[in-house]
Amino acid sequence: MKKVNIKENERIDDLNRNGYKIIQNTQNFCFGMDAVLLSGFIKVKKDEIVIDLGTGTGVLPILMAAKTFGKYFIGIDIQKESVEMARRSVILNELENKVLIETADIKTVYENYEKHSFDVVTSNPPYMNAGGGLLNSYTPKAIARHEILCSLEDLIKSTEKLLKFSGRFYMVHRPHRLTDIFITLRKYNIEPKKIRFVQPYNNSEPNMVLIEAVKGAKSMLKILPTLIIYDENGKYTDEVSDIYYK
Amino acid sequence: MKKVNIKENERIDDLNRNGYKIIQNTQNFCFGMDAVLLSGFIKVKKDEIVIDLGTGTGVLPILMAAKTFGKYFIGIDIQKESVEMARRSVILNELENKVLIETADIKTVYENYEKHSFDVVTSNPPYMNAGGGLLNSYTPKAIARHEILCSLEDLIKSTEKLLKFSGRFYMVHRPHRLTDIFITLRKYNIEPKKIRFVQPYNNSEPNMVLIEAVKGAKSMLKILPTLIIYDENGKYTDEVSDIYYK
Repeated sequence: MKKVNIKENERIDDLNRNGYKIIQNTQNFCFGMDAVLLSGFIKVKKDEIVIDLGTGTGVLPILMAAKTFGKYFIGIDIQKESVEMARRSVILNELENKVLIETADIKTVYENYEKHSFDVVTSNPPYMNAGGGLLNSYTPKAIARHEILCSLEDLIKSTEKLLKFSGRFYMVHRPHRLTDIFITLRKYNIEPKKIRFVQPYNNSEPNMVLIEAVKGAKSMLKILPTLIIYDENGKYTDEVSDIYYK
Repeated sequence: MKKVNIKENERIDDLNRNGYKIIQNTQNFCFGMDAVLLSGFIKVKKDEIVIDLGTGTGVLPILMAAKTFGKYFIGIDIQKESVEMARRSVILNELENKVLIETADIKTVYENYEKHSFDVVTSNPPYMNAGGGLLNSYTPKAIARHEILCSLEDLIKSTEKLLKFSGRFYMVHRPHRLTDIFITLRKYNIEPKKIRFVQPYNNSEPNMVLIEAVKGAKSMLKILPTLIIYDENGKYTDEVSDIYYK
């Protein structure tokens, strides 16, 4: 493991995969359970080329490099400090020949690549509507969480331009946006094929949804059994524990 | 309870509600669990006017007359034999002043009523794509189950013409059609507001979805906890048992 600089408010966390570590900034850029669960949902086949839109800490490309036999993982983010930090995580794990982190805007990133050239696009995008007065400062955290610089439609429009025909798009989002998500995906000819709801407990409502959509596919949606996070004792269920540690 | 004629292949079943009974034809028109679960999902407020599209045996209007304080329940079906049988069930239960069963085509039924005059529209429509060669005869059963005479879009288009602004639409359907359902509802300005998946066992995939959509409402979908039909011993769960018997 290489040595890299660690800045103020940063810490190194263990990813429990291949000994990989990740740098997080406790003030601005931390990944959440949604990114980890998405990493357990994404399928990347041997030699596939993957791009992660709004990569933040770079957790998805780094976890996918650990979990899959994909050839190359690009992560892009609009926030330079986040890109710089994610690059240090790549160096820390000696993944420079598999993972590339770039500064780019989701809305225009497709201009940097050959059209329709990616096998897989992934994203853990900002969930929240840009909304009103609550957001008077565009802090790094607000940009990562709210649709300030990138709407759901911006994301999906760009995904269409990046994805190959029959290429797969994986996203985690909030269940209350499901209608908007389906409508926007269909508009750009990326058909929802599998969804999996995630809920904290056995009897609670889902608070996340994992989505697999396939460019140009026919309409036929599969609803996978709901993923439950905690058992009755408040511990991770076996499945979530496997996603984190196995 | 009045006496009514019972024909060949017909039997009288107990609805376990207010002593109501229903006539079913074991060859052609039987209601399924989907209709019963939909009856437990539908909310009808005092004095509301309800229309059920593709009513079959009339089970939904009759169950809603038993379970709610709605004012008036109309059930329509394109199949005359089914309408005639459902009318006898209405008479059997002495519900002639609350439930009316009419022969009508879902595609044109709105022409018979004042535009946008219903508080609630319900439907347990044909689920299956009209498809190809399997259906060389349009049997009563095939018409009730397949989109031969009425597509999903026909149903929703007609629902829009029947429903008041802020009126509610309740439907049970197959989860694999969810994208088509959402897109078609949005197209006709009937916004999906609540969905509930139904699955046979705790760990199986859902095989039904209950949908509440509201005309002219804003986008904000609520996913209710999944309804499980059978417990680990193969018996109805308490909730399903309550829907059937309580």
